[in-house]
Amino acid sequence: MTQADRWMLPDGIAEILPADAVQVETLRRRLLDLYHCWGYELVIPPMLEFTESLLIGMGRDLDLSTFKVTDQISGRTLGIRADITPQTARIDAHSFPRAGANRLCYAGHVLYTRPRTAMGSRAPIQVGAELFGVDSLSGDIEVISMMLESLQIAGIEKVYLDLGHVAIYRSLAAVAGLDEAQRDELSALLQSKASADVYDWVAANAADPQVATWLRALPGLAGGLDCLEKARELLSGTPAPLQAALSDLQQVAEALSERYPTVELFFDLSEVRGYDYETGLVFAAYTPGHGQVLANGGRYNGIGAEFGRDRPATGFSSDLVALNTLGRGAVPETGAILAPDMRGSEGIELWRTVNELRRQGEVVIATLSGGADSDLHSRCNRELVLESGSWVIKLRD
Amino acid sequence: MTQADRWMLPDGIAEILPADAVQVETLRRRLLDLYHCWGYELVIPPMLEFTESLLIGMGRDLDLSTFKVTDQISGRTLGIRADITPQTARIDAHSFPRAGANRLCYAGHVLYTRPRTAMGSRAPIQVGAELFGVDSLSGDIEVISMMLESLQIAGIEKVYLDLGHVAIYRSLAAVAGLDEAQRDELSALLQSKASADVYDWVAANAADPQVATWLRALPGLAGGLDCLEKARELLSGTPAPLQAALSDLQQVAEALSERYPTVELFFDLSEVRGYDYETGLVFAAYTPGHGQVLANGGRYNGIGAEFGRDRPATGFSSDLVALNTLGRGAVPETGAILAPDMRGSEGIELWRTVNELRRQGEVVIATLSGGADSDLHSRCNRELVLESGSWVIKLRD
Repeated sequence: MTQADRWMLPDGIAEILPADAVQVETLRRRLLDLYHCWGYELVIPPMLEFTESLLIGMGRDLDLSTFKVTDQISGRTLGIRADITPQTARIDAHSFPRAGANRLCYAGHVLYTRPRTAMGSRAPIQVGAELFGVDSLSGDIEVISMMLESLQIAGIEKVYLDLGHVAIYRSLAAVAGLDEAQRDELSALLQSKASADVYDWVAANAADPQVATWLRALPGLAGGLDCLEKARELLSGTPAPLQAALSDLQQVAEALSERYPTVELFFDLSEVRGYDYETGLVFAAYTPGHGQVLANGGRYNGIGAEFGRDRPATGFSSDLVALNTLGRGAVPETGAILAPDMRGSEGIELWRTVNELRRQGEVVIATLSGGADSDLHSRCNRELVLESGSWVIKLRD
Repeated sequence: MTQADRWMLPDGIAEILPADAVQVETLRRRLLDLYHCWGYELVIPPMLEFTESLLIGMGRDLDLSTFKVTDQISGRTLGIRADITPQTARIDAHSFPRAGANRLCYAGHVLYTRPRTAMGSRAPIQVGAELFGVDSLSGDIEVISMMLESLQIAGIEKVYLDLGHVAIYRSLAAVAGLDEAQRDELSALLQSKASADVYDWVAANAADPQVATWLRALPGLAGGLDCLEKARELLSGTPAPLQAALSDLQQVAEALSERYPTVELFFDLSEVRGYDYETGLVFAAYTPGHGQVLANGGRYNGIGAEFGRDRPATGFSSDLVALNTLGRGAVPETGAILAPDMRGSEGIELWRTVNELRRQGEVVIATLSGGADSDLHSRCNRELVLESGSWVIKLRD
């Protein structure tokens, strides 16, 4: 690496410079304040932990995404976190247990070994909230509502919300008697939306004609609210957990439509994302013209069992940097006040004037000897000048 | 690792739970707001970079402190940052250059392979500010003032400020003709404050009796303001850079005494900390009863040369977590409002009432079916109840 390119950053790793950084910081504060007002308490989990703690029950994708280093103290393997959710599960199970509902929120850097999407970031700032100890639709609805409020605050105008439920595929796979390898094969086909391949695969693997009909219906069960009605017809006779999932989706859709009438709801009953660890309702938000998910989450009951405490759980998260880029909530720039070098003869009097202005929230930038200040002058629309013995603020040209 | 101890964290790695987290977050905001008001612009550098970029000119201690991983994309070595200062130097040199003064600030996690002190953290949250492009005492005084303001904001009541200047030892080592190995040997002796060993070492290594006298004076030149006067006597006749350093210390001390009369100033003219990369005035703040440094910094001109742009630079940083623990600025807890489950028959009306309260900054926590709420009740000093058809807030017992 020569001197000339030592400033280069690795692929998928970005730095955030002043104009954007102040926006990201403002959005960060507004989101954490939102979660606070909903009763969610801030936690700041560490950037690295033993891999055994970080990777619990979250599937092999997370394992592959996680940078590993050796702990020089214990000799054991540490992981740099690629997800904050398992850390909150550990906190709920052990360090900050509550008998009932435990509402936690966070904002912090995570790192991925590889970007999760083409052109994606390897260093998002994950912001989110998790609700432990509540196993009801009220909990799911609270969490999805907070996610939608977050997008509003970020200034995302048009939001599509995808809803799914892992019990649908899981129930059908069980009633079809699929083994793990078969479940993975079919789930890959469903994920790629390859209806014809699903049809053929079902012919070869599902003996029962009724079950085969149900499985073949899955790729077609995606769309607006009417898709739930269609599902109740096409999947009638399926096991109780599947019927309950359909009813849950219906109730959540009704509550959200009332609260957020401008959000468009979509259903995908063949949704298999997070099939490894999600256990109930799953959801993801999109905006037109941006192919990547904006924010997502779902129910992942039982995750705490790995830490000795089995608890219902649901939550959502998002990338603060992406939210800021898409939402672009402009932070008004008020302009700073230019002050003379405070080591001049006016000394401490000027210092007191400047510090009082700063306490009032003004940005006051001192001219310093030993530095050319051409850029500085363009940031300051006012300046402190001495008139008849007192310091006054004057507009600059 | 059994299920029972999967919650354990590595040595020197801590998580921050709600009561502390809200204080850390509050302090973080107040410090970044302070720097903003002084004209320092926020940057958010990445958690990891190519090691060639992270480790420039900062000495081998930083290299040993930095966790390294392999980039699966480029095959090159990446470092998880152990210091944010070099990142800001890169930004000043390349991504966000300004012709004159460039004021940058930051707050973010850093990681160390090993704690820097016994019982020290391996995962501090580094908060600080850097001033590029200004090579004058005005710049040093601005940066030290901001550091002292930071400690005030954190609620640290009694502050000791240690001041030193690397040109003092560097000039004497040059005039004594010490080679690099000798400089390291003597600097280790000075650092351990072993006067007798310094005496013997000088007898063996410095031929010129005048130079030997100067070197032997160093361990004794530590203390209050009078130590500068003593130094002018004992080090009279030393080279011009040393004389200039003494004059700088005197001027900085005068300016700071006027601004911060309650801060006690100490001088250590044998200070060799950061001798690898610091180039001028160095400073560190302490508080009684706490052996570790609270905040420190210094001048490190020239660091940007590694990125192709040689710039004067000075700055300071601190650990937000330690500052919070020592300062303990209590955040008042106002108490939350308990609301009924919003999926009941009152539905959307209750929802609107609750959300309006939240917009006003109230914490409103919904009772959710499916979760026991014993803890919740203790957090809420008020509740929303329906009286004659409208929702009113009532005090709870």
